[in-house]
Amino acid sequence: MRIEAKLKEMGLALPAEMRAPPGFKVAWRQVRIAGDRAIIAGHGPRLADGMFALPAGKVGSELTVEQGYAAAKNTALAVLGDLKRELGDLDRVSSWLRVFGMVNAAPGFTSLPQVIDGFTDLMITLYGEEAAMCPRAVAGMAELALNAPVIIEGEVQIHPS
Amino acid sequence: MRIEAKLKEMGLALPAEMRAPPGFKVAWRQVRIAGDRAIIAGHGPRLADGMFALPAGKVGSELTVEQGYAAAKNTALAVLGDLKRELGDLDRVSSWLRVFGMVNAAPGFTSLPQVIDGFTDLMITLYGEEAAMCPRAVAGMAELALNAPVIIEGEVQIHPS
Amino acid sequence: MRIEAKLKEMGLALPAEMRAPPGFKVAWRQVRIAGDRAIIAGHGPRLADGMFALPAGKVGSELTVEQGYAAAKNTALAVLGDLKRELGDLDRVSSWLRVFGMVNAAPGFTSLPQVIDGFTDLMITLYGEEAAMCPRAVAGMAELALNAPVIIEGEVQIHPS
Repeated sequence: MRIEAKLKEMGLALPAEMRAPPGFKVAWRQVRIAGDRAIIAGHGPRLADGMFALPAGKVGSELTVEQGYAAAKNTALAVLGDLKRELGDLDRVSSWLRVFGMVNAAPGFTSLPQVIDGFTDLMITLYGEEAAMCPRAVAGMAELALNAPVIIEGEVQIHPS
Repeated sequence: MRIEAKLKEMGLALPAEMRAPPGFKVAWRQVRIAGDRAIIAGHGPRLADGMFALPAGKVGSELTVEQGYAAAKNTALAVLGDLKRELGDLDRVSSWLRVFGMVNAAPGFTSLPQVIDGFTDLMITLYGEEAAMCPRAVAGMAELALNAPVIIEGEVQIHPS
Repeated sequence: MRIEAKLKEMGLALPAEMRAPPGFKVAWRQVRIAGDRAIIAGHGPRLADGMFALPAGKVGSELTVEQGYAAAKNTALAVLGDLKRELGDLDRVSSWLRVFGMVNAAPGFTSLPQVIDGFTDLMITLYGEEAAMCPRAVAGMAELALNAPVIIEGEVQIHPS
């Protein structure tokens, strides 16, 4: 429970399971374990109660880089919440294998890594550079569901339970 | 041959291998097996004879959500056709590990999950929720090859042959 | 050292490690080995000294397809450079498992596979069709970091060292 202790020290809480907005069907699972891999669905920012967290909008016009960074950090907490529900203990994550950060980008906005750093910085603080610094790809999308500022998916390696 | 029996019951047929449009080089393979994983290339909708299936265009302007959904369902059949050619039997798919659904999105169109549900719904009907509901990410792309309404890629876990 | 001998024969050199542009933090690693997999971060074109290689811009308006193709080929060299640093020998790559090619696409530009072929063609020349032709997905992005014409990420299978 080392990771959760760190989160508590930082004053950060993990949100509840995703609650689907009206007209939205959750036809996927958030995490799938396959051997020593845990594969993570596309996640967006989430409130404590599991609802989608505002503000929505395009980073670079409707939202600032700082708001995008905050949304990516919030998304990291949503991912950790779902990993905890699936793995039981966040310490079971031995290393991050892959992160794909999708930014809802305003035309001409290219500071995309600086947005996804909100996700990465938190993971590095929690897991350390060796485990958390992993192959990452970042792209500016034309549109995202719910007009979310970011959607992030990836994969971690896990210890046996 | 349980999955193929279900497809037949539903009146659905699997299309032939992809036939490249003029000026288009198929410099990839559709499915690669690696241990107990089968990795699936980006697929678009396909006619019975393997040609790209119209209508093309941006979902939310040139195409409706319903047309996008139908294209995603059609893409699922293209994926299943290629999985069958590689695996011999679609029953060898033990579970879906990951799906990435890319939608050719008109400006302001965010009902992206509702489009990719055309793919997911068919897989759930065929394989059941436990096996088919997997981590999914969905995004609205600026452009897709051939102006396809959707391109979907992913990964499944397989039983040994 | 078979692959490096081929590169030398072709007059191609591998670039140095990525040097971050001003204001850019490299909060990821380029390659992560996990068992027999090597996972590759999103890469862009790179100069010999590790700096980002111009020209930047949208393919289909600011850049031609040929310039996009050249950028994708250059990106392949950046990937190979990082694989060599991580694996010691490029011959350890037994096969390509997955490639995701992201193109910085001008509105209406759909010749995206023809751009990413710059990456694929070089890998096929070096590793041969059986090993290099792998599942590939290609998409046109709204924006990419540094206004790069392409970003390419993927995964390879490796022999034990």
